[in-house]
Amino acid sequence: MHDWDLVIHNVHLATMENGYGELRDAAIAIKDGRIAWLGRAAELPANSAEQIDGQGCWVTPGLIDCHTHSVYAGNRSDEFEARLNGASYEEISRAGGGIMATVRATRAASEGELLRQSLPRVRALLAEGVTTIEIKSGYGLETGAEARMLRVARTIGRVLPVRVRTTFLGAHALPPEFAGRSDDYIDHVCTQMLPAIAGEGLIDAVDAFCERIGFSAAQTQRVFEAARALRLPVKLHAEQLSDQGGAALVARHQGLSADHLEFLSDDGVAAMAQQGTVAVLLPGAYYFLRETQMPPIAQLRAAGVPMAVSTDCNPGTSPMTSLLLAMNMACTLWRLTPQEALAGATCHAARALGLQDEAGTLAIGKRADLALWRIARPADLAYAMGCNPCMAVLNGGSWRAPVVSLPD
Amino acid sequence: MHDWDLVIHNVHLATMENGYGELRDAAIAIKDGRIAWLGRAAELPANSAEQIDGQGCWVTPGLIDCHTHSVYAGNRSDEFEARLNGASYEEISRAGGGIMATVRATRAASEGELLRQSLPRVRALLAEGVTTIEIKSGYGLETGAEARMLRVARTIGRVLPVRVRTTFLGAHALPPEFAGRSDDYIDHVCTQMLPAIAGEGLIDAVDAFCERIGFSAAQTQRVFEAARALRLPVKLHAEQLSDQGGAALVARHQGLSADHLEFLSDDGVAAMAQQGTVAVLLPGAYYFLRETQMPPIAQLRAAGVPMAVSTDCNPGTSPMTSLLLAMNMACTLWRLTPQEALAGATCHAARALGLQDEAGTLAIGKRADLALWRIARPADLAYAMGCNPCMAVLNGGSWRAPVVSLPD
Ligand SMILES: [Zn+2]
Ligand SMILES: [Zn+2]
Repeated sequence: MHDWDLVIHNVHLATMENGYGELRDAAIAIKDGRIAWLGRAAELPANSAEQIDGQGCWVTPGLIDCHTHSVYAGNRSDEFEARLNGASYEEISRAGGGIMATVRATRAASEGELLRQSLPRVRALLAEGVTTIEIKSGYGLETGAEARMLRVARTIGRVLPVRVRTTFLGAHALPPEFAGRSDDYIDHVCTQMLPAIAGEGLIDAVDAFCERIGFSAAQTQRVFEAARALRLPVKLHAEQLSDQGGAALVARHQGLSADHLEFLSDDGVAAMAQQGTVAVLLPGAYYFLRETQMPPIAQLRAAGVPMAVSTDCNPGTSPMTSLLLAMNMACTLWRLTPQEALAGATCHAARALGLQDEAGTLAIGKRADLALWRIARPADLAYAMGCNPCMAVLNGGSWRAPVVSLPD
Repeated sequence: MHDWDLVIHNVHLATMENGYGELRDAAIAIKDGRIAWLGRAAELPANSAEQIDGQGCWVTPGLIDCHTHSVYAGNRSDEFEARLNGASYEEISRAGGGIMATVRATRAASEGELLRQSLPRVRALLAEGVTTIEIKSGYGLETGAEARMLRVARTIGRVLPVRVRTTFLGAHALPPEFAGRSDDYIDHVCTQMLPAIAGEGLIDAVDAFCERIGFSAAQTQRVFEAARALRLPVKLHAEQLSDQGGAALVARHQGLSADHLEFLSDDGVAAMAQQGTVAVLLPGAYYFLRETQMPPIAQLRAAGVPMAVSTDCNPGTSPMTSLLLAMNMACTLWRLTPQEALAGATCHAARALGLQDEAGTLAIGKRADLALWRIARPADLAYAMGCNPCMAVLNGGSWRAPVVSLPD
């Protein structure tokens, strides 16, 4: 007689083990916040747990959004509007727009204000069955404001039912104080900002923007070495607008993931495959910027590189707070299969955060982060646009409604 | 002393009069389900109405989705999955897929089952501030099933807080019973189906699919003449995949709207402009089918043709239940301005349904269908992807929450 806490029966399971895996007419048992058993309902052992009727829902691992810039202040819909009324990027930048508008607003915001403005975005993600998100810094670009962003990210993980992984992205853009002195800024990032903020325990991983309009591969390498000295894993915004060899660089540093990858070369694919680096696909930015160069999906698939899918939630290039929509775009625009898209928001996203032993699949011993969906089949999640069929969520074995309340 | 029922103060108004129009720091008064007054808060006359603090929200007319196929049975995510796994349209069609899969499921569904399956789609639309939708038949293709679809549409308008306009689309596709005999089917539509179903009071307008793979312009004209005999207004699926002269045809018949319009010619634009025919833009289908031919937005704009924006909610080519996402696509993919997109979901959508005297703008005497949004500016509605900032809705002066309950 098993003394489990909870059994959910009358469900189908998308286990996502080894990339996918279905189990129909199933049940799943929870004990101490972890998955204690799962299998065919007919084979459910005797137990004393509370029994919940899943009403024919599909159960997936709680979704994981592994690349977000969801903590920031301000709003950039004015630029969206200006561009559509004919303003050029240059004109907008000269008028103080672009990423520096978000940097100014974020630097000016108090911690409470930053939290207040960011919570609705995270709540929107959670409503669609998300149980883990990554949140990056990168709109502070100075020690105080970068630390504030990551403290807000940690606070979100306390006040909302979501596990938050923080990423330090000091090397996101060059702040105006360092205009024309990008090497000096990278020095400052490596020797001051990163150690200070890591010392506060605010950093789970380190990222950079390796691009002609960002930082060079050599500068990125210095950031990675500083991260290594602090034993922090790395990841990279790589090959979004041009091939800088960033994916191979992050692979060489045993990084968690290379993200974007529209201009990824065959060598980059090979390096990622060899090191097991996750490819994080961000179709929202591709869509919103009307890009035409797609990541080499077929090559990544052929090479066995795990592909994650994420919103890239940010005010400038992907103002998206729906991971289901990102999955739809990955299928519609880049021809992932619905199973690949779901793996991209579960097991492969877990790996991109180094959480593959804890989350991302339905397996005994994993954290009981589950989403229940009223759908005909798992493909529905990527197929429908603007529909949220999430019925309920378990976070570490605790039930919540999809839409969560704001904290007081 | 005005004896209004309700005053909402501390709001900004997007009045949408003459296509747009903003009024900041405003108030709006409701009496007997209609707008009784609106203006600057400082000029609010003395009144005995209940006072509601709008907390700085923006108020728009309730959104109007003027082109949906939201009543149907079954699910086509299996085809989406098969296509992404390499199946061709032909293979799917040979396997019984495509529109005929929806026709079979819809014919087989009871009225109750059809309602049960359709309600979640309409609820998803309503959650984003929609107060009026159009619903088409077209998956029955026989008198009984077409009438059943439209009865379900009417039922939706009774059990959910939404105004429903029904459209008879018997000439949507050729049913298998008439294979090779499309003229005979059009005969049957004109002389049997349409009069019988109109006789039940189920039809507000008549539509057809004028396309190489649908019905010819000559066949469409016969449908329009049958509609005219019953004094029913017409509209048309026109120029989606090729130029059939459908827009000019519907304009000549003083139709409400020509919809899709990717292959619209200059002559078509001129005919629509002359007759005041609304152009209903459906970017969801363009996106989902990965089309590349855009409607001639600049020409429509230059000619002063009113442009509506709609979801085209349907299982085959636009499984979309978010009008805000359709607005984003209209801006991102087709370069409408956010103001045009909002006009497309309010005042011009009202005109596409013949409701311009009742709905679609904030003006004295109009029905009090309003949506309240927690946004910085109206452009936010088209800018954000997957975010629903709707705080509350009025339907004819009655409050409702964005998410409405299912009827018992
Ligand atoms: Zn990013
Ligand atoms: Zn249609």
